Amino acid sequence: FGPRPCKQSPNLLFVLFLNFFLFIYFFYQTFVGTAVGMSLNEHSMQALSWRKLYLSRAKLKATSRTSALLSGFAMVAMVEVQLEPEHKYPPGLLIAFSACTTILVAVHLFALMISTCILPNLEAVSNVHNLNSVNESPHERMHRHIELAWAFSTVIGTLLFLTEVMLLCWVKFLPLKSKPGENDGSISPGQAAAIASTCIMVPFGLVFIVFAVHFYRTLVSHKTDRQIRELDQVIKLQEQ
Amino acid sequence: FGPRPCKQSPNLLFVLFLNFFLFIYFFYQTFVGTAVGMSLNEHSMQALSWRKLYLSRAKLKATSRTSALLSGFAMVAMVEVQLEPEHKYPPGLLIAFSACTTILVAVHLFALMISTCILPNLEAVSNVHNLNSVNESPHERMHRHIELAWAFSTVIGTLLFLTEVMLLCWVKFLPLKSKPGENDGSISPGQAAAIASTCIMVPFGLVFIVFAVHFYRTLVSHKTDRQIRELDQVIKLQEQ
Amino acid sequence: FGPRPCKQSPNLLFVLFLNFFLFIYFFYQTFVGTAVGMSLNEHSMQALSWRKLYLSRAKLKATSRTSALLSGFAMVAMVEVQLEPEHKYPPGLLIAFSACTTILVAVHLFALMISTCILPNLEAVSNVHNLNSVNESPHERMHRHIELAWAFSTVIGTLLFLTEVMLLCWVKFLPLKSKPGENDGSISPGQAAAIASTCIMVPFGLVFIVFAVHFYRTLVSHKTDRQIRELDQVIKLQEQ
Amino acid sequence: FGPRPCKQSPNLLFVLFLNFFLFIYFFYQTFVGTAVGMSLNEHSMQALSWRKLYLSRAKLKATSRTSALLSGFAMVAMVEVQLEPEHKYPPGLLIAFSACTTILVAVHLFALMISTCILPNLEAVSNVHNLNSVNESPHERMHRHIELAWAFSTVIGTLLFLTEVMLLCWVKFLPLKSKPGENDGSISPGQAAAIASTCIMVPFGLVFIVFAVHFYRTLVSHKTDRQIRELDQVIKLQEQ
Amino acid sequence: FGPRPCKQSPNLLFVLFLNFFLFIYFFYQTFVGTAVGMSLNEHSMQALSWRKLYLSRAKLKATSRTSALLSGFAMVAMVEVQLEPEHKYPPGLLIAFSACTTILVAVHLFALMISTCILPNLEAVSNVHNLNSVNESPHERMHRHIELAWAFSTVIGTLLFLTEVMLLCWVKFLPLKSKPGENDGSISPGQAAAIASTCIMVPFGLVFIVFAVHFYRTLVSHKTDRQIRELDQVIKLQEQ
Amino acid sequence: FGPRPCKQSPNLLFVLFLNFFLFIYFFYQTFVGTAVGMSLNEHSMQALSWRKLYLSRAKLKATSRTSALLSGFAMVAMVEVQLEPEHKYPPGLLIAFSACTTILVAVHLFALMISTCILPNLEAVSNVHNLNSVNESPHERMHRHIELAWAFSTVIGTLLFLTEVMLLCWVKFLPLKSKPGENDGSISPGQAAAIASTCIMVPFGLVFIVFAVHFYRTLVSHKTDRQIRELDQVIKLQEQ
Repeated sequence: FGPRPCKQSPNLLFVLFLNFFLFIYFFYQTFVGTAVGMSLNEHSMQALSWRKLYLSRAKLKATSRTSALLSGFAMVAMVEVQLEPEHKYPPGLLIAFSACTTILVAVHLFALMISTCILPNLEAVSNVHNLNSVNESPHERMHRHIELAWAFSTVIGTLLFLTEVMLLCWVKFLPLKSKPGENDGSISPGQAAAIASTCIMVPFGLVFIVFAVHFYRTLVSHKTDRQIRELDQVIKLQEQ
Repeated sequence: FGPRPCKQSPNLLFVLFLNFFLFIYFFYQTFVGTAVGMSLNEHSMQALSWRKLYLSRAKLKATSRTSALLSGFAMVAMVEVQLEPEHKYPPGLLIAFSACTTILVAVHLFALMISTCILPNLEAVSNVHNLNSVNESPHERMHRHIELAWAFSTVIGTLLFLTEVMLLCWVKFLPLKSKPGENDGSISPGQAAAIASTCIMVPFGLVFIVFAVHFYRTLVSHKTDRQIRELDQVIKLQEQ
Repeated sequence: FGPRPCKQSPNLLFVLFLNFFLFIYFFYQTFVGTAVGMSLNEHSMQALSWRKLYLSRAKLKATSRTSALLSGFAMVAMVEVQLEPEHKYPPGLLIAFSACTTILVAVHLFALMISTCILPNLEAVSNVHNLNSVNESPHERMHRHIELAWAFSTVIGTLLFLTEVMLLCWVKFLPLKSKPGENDGSISPGQAAAIASTCIMVPFGLVFIVFAVHFYRTLVSHKTDRQIRELDQVIKLQEQ
Repeated sequence: FGPRPCKQSPNLLFVLFLNFFLFIYFFYQTFVGTAVGMSLNEHSMQALSWRKLYLSRAKLKATSRTSALLSGFAMVAMVEVQLEPEHKYPPGLLIAFSACTTILVAVHLFALMISTCILPNLEAVSNVHNLNSVNESPHERMHRHIELAWAFSTVIGTLLFLTEVMLLCWVKFLPLKSKPGENDGSISPGQAAAIASTCIMVPFGLVFIVFAVHFYRTLVSHKTDRQIRELDQVIKLQEQ
Repeated sequence: FGPRPCKQSPNLLFVLFLNFFLFIYFFYQTFVGTAVGMSLNEHSMQALSWRKLYLSRAKLKATSRTSALLSGFAMVAMVEVQLEPEHKYPPGLLIAFSACTTILVAVHLFALMISTCILPNLEAVSNVHNLNSVNESPHERMHRHIELAWAFSTVIGTLLFLTEVMLLCWVKFLPLKSKPGENDGSISPGQAAAIASTCIMVPFGLVFIVFAVHFYRTLVSHKTDRQIRELDQVIKLQEQ
Repeated sequence: FGPRPCKQSPNLLFVLFLNFFLFIYFFYQTFVGTAVGMSLNEHSMQALSWRKLYLSRAKLKATSRTSALLSGFAMVAMVEVQLEPEHKYPPGLLIAFSACTTILVAVHLFALMISTCILPNLEAVSNVHNLNSVNESPHERMHRHIELAWAFSTVIGTLLFLTEVMLLCWVKFLPLKSKPGENDGSISPGQAAAIASTCIMVPFGLVFIVFAVHFYRTLVSHKTDRQIRELDQVIKLQEQ
């Protein structure tokens, strides 16, 4: 009757082994390729790192799309607008229009360049499906560049684009001014239209800036709230 | 005969363990990464939160696409329309055209800006494949901003675009008026065409607004109906 | 020999449990997240509901793409076509052109608006991967709106676009008429070209309408045939 | 010794059951949702049906993309080409240009309409992930419509587009003819350029048609070869 | 004690069966739908066939995208370039410009047509997820057509596009020549600009051709190297 | 009692076999299709190779998109800018504009050609889902070509595009100079605008170059740091 008990132990062993491997399997599917022995703290660090990677990637993608679109529109606008050679434009308007278009295209191309340079590195890392590879991605070190491209493309780029539209209205409507017989000091229809466009755009630009600041604060306070809540949880867990 | 029963217990244990782990496996695949001990109520809260996240993401994506398209068309229209320098446009028309284009581009760029700012945060969260991460997404706190972008892009933006098309018809067809020998008080062909366009667009705009209101009510009543039905179900369950 | 049978019963139990859980697993993978106790009838109802959801989503996507494209072309056509200020266009042509462009843009923008409003709701539901969530989607209640957007975008929109192309030919080729020394009653080359375009487009438009009707009937009869066949199957099953 | 054999039978049963369910699982994963009792013949019929569905879907997608692109270019070409009002175009050229543009846009819009109508039905079916649903797809009954859209978009549409480019060269280069002092019977530079374009396009069009026919034959003979080979296999299997 | 061994054999059988089925499962997941009894040689043949299929598909997709883009730009360039009716263009320039545009559009449309015809067949096959279906794809028989479309679109098409840009510079800058009072035999600014463009483009075109040849050789030698390495491995295996 | 032990060994065997196969299964899912007997070192070599493949693919995709976009804008700009035939442009400006456009289009088309040639080979390899197939991809051997396309498209292409925008401003604003009665030596408004554009673009171009160099260094130092850290780890592991 000696061998009998050893017959049951395989069954027990089997249960244990199976459980062990099924457990590994679950963990394996959750965190593909993570080292099994990694502590929970390291894991949550890595999850945070991945979320930052995804955020950077999404930001760069949005930057690249918006920048290509807006710089294209700005360029088409400058190429296709027809300046009347007969009309005397005020020098300030021409300088402002030329400067605004140049800066607009330059800022968007700069953002596009940064985005095109960093994005392939992030995409290569996020395609490998290995959790540890997140440490080899340059998105943490290039954090400031990404934020720069982001700000250039969204905030400064959009503000410049609004200015461009306003200046375009002036360039477009001003030549309609010089009508003989009505040039008696009062403003012409073209001037009135351009002034209307400016009157709408200036407060809108201010609202835009206020909104951007408010928006940034909401995002930051959201992040801070979350971190404080997580800290509280950690403190509670330690007190128990 | 003592060891015998203990031989069967491993089998029973095996059945129990296997069942337990298979069960976990099913749950695991359904709600990837959820805490196993979470109550059903918490779970349905989270499912609702995810649906809200997906809804916000889809809304922002649609907003971004529509806004880029319509603002682009509006800008191209203003750049490429050729104002006859010889013709005396009525000042009101020019002011309306300039104001409408400016507001249209500004509203769509504003919606585009909001969308480009929030979308990467949502995409980063929905890529992590961890159910709890939904709480770290800013879509609940930024709810009003998303609705604002949405309303700007769809309702106000489309209405302004219809107005823009109508004003464009006036700008385009009015210079055809001034024919010598026919200027006898009756309306010219160009004026007739512009008036026809206005007569079509004004009732259409009203239908559009009525439809948008009706549409909004249907969506809200659909939501309310669903919530009442769910409440009824909960009450019935408690009565049993 | 008493305990013996009870030793086999665990094995039997094991087989039964395993079968049971494997069965659940298969069902689980087929209908992710469905209630296990749902009857077959309810299930086929739900499958039908999902197919309707996918159909609505695909229709709205196609609507949105087609509408954006065609309204864009129509708008570009109206902005960029150059009306000769020297030429006397017949008033009817100008009114028709202006009206056609306005209706075309309005119809497509309307379809685009409906599509942009409903689509995010459907996408949010179809992303949740829970079969029961199909009941919370507004696609059944908004059925008529979807069909309206669909019809506006495909049938009416395409017909109007064909008319637009024909009118554009008239606007483009008519100013070529007024040549001195040939204005002797016979039609000019420009008129001939515009008439040729009309002669092609009118029968084509009729074929188009006939085809659309025939097409709609084929789709409906296909649906009816399928339902009759399914009904026959149910009757046969009940007779056995 | 009676209960003994029944002890082994559970194990045997277990093996049989497990095999049976694993088998079902493999089949399940291969042909998601197929009826388990379906004969091999029915299965290969269904696989063929699915391949036809995918082929129809891919054809319609390609049709829709190509048609939208080419009709857009044709329309832009007609809107933006500048006809010299001073120049006497030959009537035949204007009629041919106007007719070609009209037919081109109509053919492509027709293909686009068919594609937009059938595609959502196919997409809804191919999203449901149920093998039997292939029978409910209208792609077999609408087979001729799909082939029509396909032929319209690819063969006729491309040929017309080549003709359009040739006519555009004539319209563009012919006004350059009328130079004073050189109008001495010999062909002008503009005419020479247009004739060169025609001389290139006519043989190219013929090669195009020959190629399309040859191409169609290769595709058909490929299909026939495959069917003959499969028939041979069936005959060999029956002879064994 | 006779029945005893037969009790163990089920366990052995179970192990064998389980192993066997798990093995099948692994193979099944690796090579979805492959015949289990297929020899390793046949399998590597099939893998090669699939890689060829994917290569053809990727080539046709790239062809279709590049061709649509470049033919569109060429067409827009010809439609929108403004020929000065007052200026005497040299006949050779006009003929070259007209011929180049015609060939460019024809070559790209040809490549687009081939791509649109074959691509749906390949996509339908690669969607079925059945390894054997690769034999039913026409990509091997249509190999020469795919290579033709590829060469037309990439090598010939790009070279023609470079020529087109050069000719466009001539057409654009040549009318600036005829200034009164400077027509004293020396080249005008416009001519100088056009000559500069040509001086850049001709060596660039040569480098382009050299590079294409070098490129093709590298690709071929890479393929040959790989095949020789594989052959060496086979020989080593046979020698052991 | 002889057969008894052999009864337990099957169970043990079973456990061993099951573990073995489950292990294989995990490895199989982690590194699809890798040779099981491969050493860890070989594996990390392969992972590195795959990451390089993904990086090359992402770079070529970004190159292709950016190049198509920027060359298209450059071409449209040259076609649509309207040179005043009445105005005497300085020869240097015309030569610079013509040369810049030619080089810009050529550089981007070159990058596009390389990208279109290599990309299908990489995509075919990365679709096969066999880890060993990475060795058959030409991305290591064609490494220099990919870097060339990348540099052409991003760094040189963007710099040239900025120059193009600056030259466009000169071409656009210079004809506004020649006003009668103000031609008294001081600069005209048009000249002032063009100079403003140049004054902005020159420092921006310098910052751009400095940034690109700094950027390249950060990327390289990131790569070097990572390699040093990995080397340190290897040394530590060997010391233990």
